[in-house]
Amino acid sequence: MHNINEPVYYGDYLELNKLLDSQHPKSKKIGNEAHDETLFIIVHQVYELWFKQILHELHSMKDVFDQKKIMESELSTVVHRLERIKKIQSILIDQLDVMETMTPMDFLEFRDLLVPASGFQSVQFREIEILMGLRTDQRKEVDREYFLGRLQKDDQDRLLEMEKTPSLIGLLEDWLERMPFTFTDEFDFWGEYQSTVDDMLCGDEITIQDNKATLSEKALEMQLANLNGTRMTFATLFEESIHNGLKEKGERRLSQKATLNALFILLYRDEPILFLPFVILENLMDIDELFTTWRYRHAIMAHRMLGTKIGTGGSSGHKYLKSAAENNRVFMDLFNLSTFLIPRSKLPVLPAKLKEQMNFSYRG
Amino acid sequence: MHNINEPVYYGDYLELNKLLDSQHPKSKKIGNEAHDETLFIIVHQVYELWFKQILHELHSMKDVFDQKKIMESELSTVVHRLERIKKIQSILIDQLDVMETMTPMDFLEFRDLLVPASGFQSVQFREIEILMGLRTDQRKEVDREYFLGRLQKDDQDRLLEMEKTPSLIGLLEDWLERMPFTFTDEFDFWGEYQSTVDDMLCGDEITIQDNKATLSEKALEMQLANLNGTRMTFATLFEESIHNGLKEKGERRLSQKATLNALFILLYRDEPILFLPFVILENLMDIDELFTTWRYRHAIMAHRMLGTKIGTGGSSGHKYLKSAAENNRVFMDLFNLSTFLIPRSKLPVLPAKLKEQMNFSYRG
Amino acid sequence: MHNINEPVYYGDYLELNKLLDSQHPKSKKIGNEAHDETLFIIVHQVYELWFKQILHELHSMKDVFDQKKIMESELSTVVHRLERIKKIQSILIDQLDVMETMTPMDFLEFRDLLVPASGFQSVQFREIEILMGLRTDQRKEVDREYFLGRLQKDDQDRLLEMEKTPSLIGLLEDWLERMPFTFTDEFDFWGEYQSTVDDMLCGDEITIQDNKATLSEKALEMQLANLNGTRMTFATLFEESIHNGLKEKGERRLSQKATLNALFILLYRDEPILFLPFVILENLMDIDELFTTWRYRHAIMAHRMLGTKIGTGGSSGHKYLKSAAENNRVFMDLFNLSTFLIPRSKLPVLPAKLKEQMNFSYRG
Amino acid sequence: MHNINEPVYYGDYLELNKLLDSQHPKSKKIGNEAHDETLFIIVHQVYELWFKQILHELHSMKDVFDQKKIMESELSTVVHRLERIKKIQSILIDQLDVMETMTPMDFLEFRDLLVPASGFQSVQFREIEILMGLRTDQRKEVDREYFLGRLQKDDQDRLLEMEKTPSLIGLLEDWLERMPFTFTDEFDFWGEYQSTVDDMLCGDEITIQDNKATLSEKALEMQLANLNGTRMTFATLFEESIHNGLKEKGERRLSQKATLNALFILLYRDEPILFLPFVILENLMDIDELFTTWRYRHAIMAHRMLGTKIGTGGSSGHKYLKSAAENNRVFMDLFNLSTFLIPRSKLPVLPAKLKEQMNFSYRG
Repeated sequence: MHNINEPVYYGDYLELNKLLDSQHPKSKKIGNEAHDETLFIIVHQVYELWFKQILHELHSMKDVFDQKKIMESELSTVVHRLERIKKIQSILIDQLDVMETMTPMDFLEFRDLLVPASGFQSVQFREIEILMGLRTDQRKEVDREYFLGRLQKDDQDRLLEMEKTPSLIGLLEDWLERMPFTFTDEFDFWGEYQSTVDDMLCGDEITIQDNKATLSEKALEMQLANLNGTRMTFATLFEESIHNGLKEKGERRLSQKATLNALFILLYRDEPILFLPFVILENLMDIDELFTTWRYRHAIMAHRMLGTKIGTGGSSGHKYLKSAAENNRVFMDLFNLSTFLIPRSKLPVLPAKLKEQMNFSYRG
Repeated sequence: MHNINEPVYYGDYLELNKLLDSQHPKSKKIGNEAHDETLFIIVHQVYELWFKQILHELHSMKDVFDQKKIMESELSTVVHRLERIKKIQSILIDQLDVMETMTPMDFLEFRDLLVPASGFQSVQFREIEILMGLRTDQRKEVDREYFLGRLQKDDQDRLLEMEKTPSLIGLLEDWLERMPFTFTDEFDFWGEYQSTVDDMLCGDEITIQDNKATLSEKALEMQLANLNGTRMTFATLFEESIHNGLKEKGERRLSQKATLNALFILLYRDEPILFLPFVILENLMDIDELFTTWRYRHAIMAHRMLGTKIGTGGSSGHKYLKSAAENNRVFMDLFNLSTFLIPRSKLPVLPAKLKEQMNFSYRG
Repeated sequence: MHNINEPVYYGDYLELNKLLDSQHPKSKKIGNEAHDETLFIIVHQVYELWFKQILHELHSMKDVFDQKKIMESELSTVVHRLERIKKIQSILIDQLDVMETMTPMDFLEFRDLLVPASGFQSVQFREIEILMGLRTDQRKEVDREYFLGRLQKDDQDRLLEMEKTPSLIGLLEDWLERMPFTFTDEFDFWGEYQSTVDDMLCGDEITIQDNKATLSEKALEMQLANLNGTRMTFATLFEESIHNGLKEKGERRLSQKATLNALFILLYRDEPILFLPFVILENLMDIDELFTTWRYRHAIMAHRMLGTKIGTGGSSGHKYLKSAAENNRVFMDLFNLSTFLIPRSKLPVLPAKLKEQMNFSYRG
Repeated sequence: MHNINEPVYYGDYLELNKLLDSQHPKSKKIGNEAHDETLFIIVHQVYELWFKQILHELHSMKDVFDQKKIMESELSTVVHRLERIKKIQSILIDQLDVMETMTPMDFLEFRDLLVPASGFQSVQFREIEILMGLRTDQRKEVDREYFLGRLQKDDQDRLLEMEKTPSLIGLLEDWLERMPFTFTDEFDFWGEYQSTVDDMLCGDEITIQDNKATLSEKALEMQLANLNGTRMTFATLFEESIHNGLKEKGERRLSQKATLNALFILLYRDEPILFLPFVILENLMDIDELFTTWRYRHAIMAHRMLGTKIGTGGSSGHKYLKSAAENNRVFMDLFNLSTFLIPRSKLPVLPAKLKEQMNFSYRG
């Protein structure tokens, strides 16, 4: 564009000649402009610009995690960029308020002109999903149909190609598996943790038996059933075969090892070296939550705009969208980790040497 | 408190002595204060204060709608208060961000001390649901259990008593049914509307038949099936018996007459006398949408905080909460109205005399 | 682009080929890409897209107000579009949070490459200001310099041309002046209002004199001074010559007649015919407030990003921006109206005939 | 309240009997209830609850900083709580939207009953200001008058007592001054930084002189003046006497040493040991910015509600509030630091030994 030494002009730098000449309402072309079609176009264009920014951040994070050894300063960069994505997602959600200033009657004025275009054809949003780690086989059938079915051939190919490259959740899993702190010759953290949990549950059982006399038969039964339920839940954590079974059924994404190490980070986030990993896990949950909220609110809006009619792209509408909101979550495993937390006061004490390793060299 | 002529002091006026002396963490009482329990208390207290305000507004609106004849200035007051409720709801949603600054590990520090207290015991929130028009028989079984089961006797009684009084949706239905504009001796609006719809659908059928040669057998079949589907959908609007059948199954709340008049308001919102009614319907949908979003985000937060554990009140957790988000909507019928809209250009023309009635006396 | 009968593709409709090919960081061109420059570009592009939408709405409103006789349905359209602008403004403000994820050190990586481009060169934002009614002579000197001084010749010309066309505040003034209700042969509203105010102030004076004995000399003096101040304030409302004097000094924008009629709308907003005008005035204040907040927060961000350094376009930075936030308000007169309100219970009673005129023809 | 073993009831735990019985509108007492007075009360009560939470966080942070040696895990706790305060502040700002649903006419209905109560009498907000570090002598005269003048004696005494204890900015200053990394026997960071800056500025001067022939006399003069300005600006950083002079005039709050170390943190935030300190500084700026925004928006709201009338507490209204928004900032020095940043490529290289000290013991 410009010679780098030439003075820069705001409008040129932002390429406003192209940007502001990209809004051409169909209704205007047929000589019957619907005032709100411009809004419809601009809202979607703003979405696409933000998607581009999110992709820019996701790619840079993938580059970080796609290394065998990650420097601490790179982790802080990752945190920074995850937080940026969250801010953008907040805007994506709030922006639905702008779209909702268009009433169903206003939409009807130009809706038929758009058939069969549909937001499902946003290639960038599909790229975001794939980069995060949403897999074709995780999608519901109806979503799978829209996923590629409505796209042009070159867009389809691009997405299929991208699905073969590592995703964020995959790289995260690798990184979590490499975490070194939970097992040394002298210290078997997970052995200790399991003992602690067993002791807690035994204690609970004794308490129940002690109170036997005061409990109705039904209450006793229920309390023992609950206790058994908790035991079985912890078994899904500690026994690899059970974990793998859940993984095969699609109820877990991360390996057992990665899951355990993520749990370790949550439990010992106060150790300096775990602070950034903890913040990264928190942020990934936030991002999952924000996309889910966005999808859900988008589904309600579609319901309001179209009633029970099908969408312009032939989509079966708000029911599909709502189910996708919940189904397309990627970092569900991290949410489930809370199931396995125990109180700080019961946590195994880390060996002094390990604690030192997890702190800074500097001793003031 | 004060003699009305005495000077007023800020702290006295707001009764801060009581208000700021209502935070007593359980963990502090047992000598092991969990820093975040104060947050937990205050966030819930703020919720309760806002619930009180919402109830204040809902009661005042019920008083308006509980009249046979409502003055225009009262409708503008209703709009004003609906918009206030929406602003408060936005705060309720954003406030979840504050709650989420408490991590699951922090919650674990005092969670056991609260058993079996639970947010389901918020009597004020139940009052809001009842006032809006959520009925016991609309609730899912699990919700019904929490609805009264966990409350103290006097709270239960109060809510049951309240369920017997008219709700907002009931009063809205009455008001919609009383709307006078769609039928006079000379003008049968719904007859015309139905003809228009029939003509549109016949036109569509002719188009399909004309294109027969260009369509595959399967495509032809599908297009005809779609057309038939649309016909059947409109039948649910126009045929009272079908509408009533849906009502009995709980798929409709409003009577056919109220539904038709609500649709009329949407279609002719540009007539001055319909402007406020239109804004009221829009706001009721907004409020429904905001409560739904709040419930949904609350469900995700519960998942994150507790994993798959059950809540302090024995609630089965995030899955229940998510299903309630969608199930407990009250103004679903209004969302569905979009199904029945037709383009402005096809709308029946209103008689001049009717249009005059719907405008102001003043002629400048 | 497309033949209107051809199926529409999402990416084509949104012209994504252009839109997503308009981000070319300078730092990348010189072979040393600064990661955050993409964010910088995209945030500004999103601003420009929203500015385009705001202009789309402002122009459509100007078209409405630029008529001698405005239909009621057009007023409801105006309200709708004003509310849309507000939603967009909220996004503009929240979007600053995204920009602030770029730290000053990150900005420094590419800042020098942009000299002397500057946000002051956003022609669209200048157009918004002009359409709203910000006049060159209202701008502070430093703002005047940036207003045109940094723009390219054709952009300058376009803005100067636009300044000659009617602005929103000018058209609003005309519309307010045309409002017919406050003076008829039998009813002189403003005469009555002035009497009422005079009576109230006399009552206040009598009260002060009655309490003379209980007041210190200084307190007496102060109370009388206050009372006098209030009298003088009301004089700026009622006496045209004083009002015009303030107008000449730039302390008022609207004519006395328009000001009085705006006050009448605030006082009698419950009359059906005044509801929409009231909502319009409220919304104009909201918009003014939102732009002011945006400018102010933008100023703080500039301070944080640049410290006390001057901006890329040579702007003197955050101090200028802060002063512009307050100075460039357009609808200040509407904010000041609250000064002249009196309690509902003291309001002159409107003649029955007038009240009837202000209501709907329909009598149920 | 409860025995700790007794089952907890939601309403008891939250002390709702007190909380929900603390709203007693004055207008209702005199038999003429103003509907919106309840809103007025509840909004202010919610503010006070949030203020209590902010104080809870601020006190806990003070406890951390009020130690000679702060553990890393404590710094992460501080970050966590600063971020919580920010979320609360966002709510405080958004909540103004709720307040603004009350129109000036609605406020007028009960305003006179509140005289002379005023938000300036919020003792908790004053405590927040004092804890942050706002000093009486920093306040403008008018603010000083409201600061204590309108409070009851015991509230005055409490605040005066609190002013004698260390504030957050004071403790931050101590902590920054203790930071050890910038000077060792082998490494004088600030000497190097100053040389670098000098070299940069000399380079700039040479460039100017080289281009002399191409510049007009006036342009040459201006460029040299600018350069000189930059030199003098950096002198305020490097020369303690100049810094102290500014401090005496109230233009700086932090000591030169603390200022330099804060700058070091900004420059080398990528070193692991500086990550948390960097985040703390960022968050303190965010908090300052959010309070400022809140004050500013509050000022605009007051203008809108009262026009140019004085507030219920006799306050001179929106002009005062606006000036306080800018004047009462505490962490201005941190915002100004951006003035002194230089590009990463020019930063002095830290000695390997120092870099090692600033990293974790663990070497994977």
